[in-house]
Amino acid sequence: MSQNQDLSQSYSLSPIGEIQSPFNEKFGIPRQPGLCNAAVGSIKLLGECNSDEAVKDLSLHSHIWILFLFHQNLKQGWKPSVRPPRLGGNEKMGVLATRSPFRPNGIGMSAVKLLGVRKSGKQWFIDVKGLDLLDGTPVVDIKPYIPYSDNIPDAQSELADTAPVNSLDVKFTSQAKNQLEALSEKAEQYPKLALLIEQVLQQDPRPSYKQNKADDKIYGILLYNLNIRWQVTNNQCDVLEIASSQ
Amino acid sequence: MSQNQDLSQSYSLSPIGEIQSPFNEKFGIPRQPGLCNAAVGSIKLLGECNSDEAVKDLSLHSHIWILFLFHQNLKQGWKPSVRPPRLGGNEKMGVLATRSPFRPNGIGMSAVKLLGVRKSGKQWFIDVKGLDLLDGTPVVDIKPYIPYSDNIPDAQSELADTAPVNSLDVKFTSQAKNQLEALSEKAEQYPKLALLIEQVLQQDPRPSYKQNKADDKIYGILLYNLNIRWQVTNNQCDVLEIASSQ
Repeated sequence: MSQNQDLSQSYSLSPIGEIQSPFNEKFGIPRQPGLCNAAVGSIKLLGECNSDEAVKDLSLHSHIWILFLFHQNLKQGWKPSVRPPRLGGNEKMGVLATRSPFRPNGIGMSAVKLLGVRKSGKQWFIDVKGLDLLDGTPVVDIKPYIPYSDNIPDAQSELADTAPVNSLDVKFTSQAKNQLEALSEKAEQYPKLALLIEQVLQQDPRPSYKQNKADDKIYGILLYNLNIRWQVTNNQCDVLEIASSQ
Repeated sequence: MSQNQDLSQSYSLSPIGEIQSPFNEKFGIPRQPGLCNAAVGSIKLLGECNSDEAVKDLSLHSHIWILFLFHQNLKQGWKPSVRPPRLGGNEKMGVLATRSPFRPNGIGMSAVKLLGVRKSGKQWFIDVKGLDLLDGTPVVDIKPYIPYSDNIPDAQSELADTAPVNSLDVKFTSQAKNQLEALSEKAEQYPKLALLIEQVLQQDPRPSYKQNKADDKIYGILLYNLNIRWQVTNNQCDVLEIASSQ
């Protein structure tokens, strides 16, 4: 039953695009695509994929799959067992039973809403919504989401049948409100900034062992080039400051 | 907004498994996974993924994604435009708007039902159902299907919103029936053979330009090591012969 191929051989991948996203560091990135619909971004196409032909008819589809590389994790390597954050980071699971970014070939996949395809000079961009990817992520493929085969309504998962519950109530302090107000003039650079901050922090990006515990630490998260400083008291997350990181 | 990485670099992939499937040639393979639920098969795990740790808890999920390489197409290369069979092979579309197997990095993805995980001696197998993959296909990743993020009920595609219609009425000639009967003793080697043949031929694997036209050609399809010979008259497909290819 063999095609006589050599399975010990390795294959080479080259990026066909690069992610442009508000997420400038891993901390705070939603755990799955679609959880944070204010996270809009683009795929900047590269090489032969940056062509009128390659993107023709892409807009026939409402959603696309992005196949990408977990590039910041590749050097660290992988192990057959991982400790998923969903289980509090304590229990071990097989890597193949998880979507852990530390995996044998370092490939990830995300289904996102397609907003449109756009050309600027000779450069093509694919605009998407619901991103869960780091800025600069190398994209290795883009495929249409095919409803009749990708939608499996009876699929079940004992690990992750439902989305994580957004548990924090996000409030902006008056200082943060003023800073938001000032940044609203740059809406093109920071689209839907208040909503993005709210959706990202609602999910409680803190490590699991910090959650549901007294915690007076002031956390920082980088969105675009903005440092967002925040603190959690009971179930409330106060956004303290929104400052340019320059 | 850059992570200062070199996007011109290439990355290397190594197979973590190999597909064992009834499909021994590309002709006749269902166009998407799940269309042919009698197509059962396995992933034979390789290297470090062939371990108790890597597959632990995989059975918590009802479905998995298989990421694989279109290995038989890699040498042929790719072009930014393709002519999908769904459009009769006449219209050109952008490769990124299709699931064409001839694509920049040659990676495919299939969602299949997980039947179970099995160990034979020191070898792990993942048994699956609804395969659309060639025997011997190199597998580069296995991920759980995560219902809350992978199921997008409102996703739409003007290209492929509904499954292709199974158009042919499959009948077995008395010769084929006798051969099926004889093979029923080898049910372990050829599970659900009659149903598999029926489901594969129902989809009318002939090239689009042959469909809905008078066609007296006798076609052959290879399933496992069996040559299935068949012919289409009007809307009926007659299975003429089921013979070992040895």
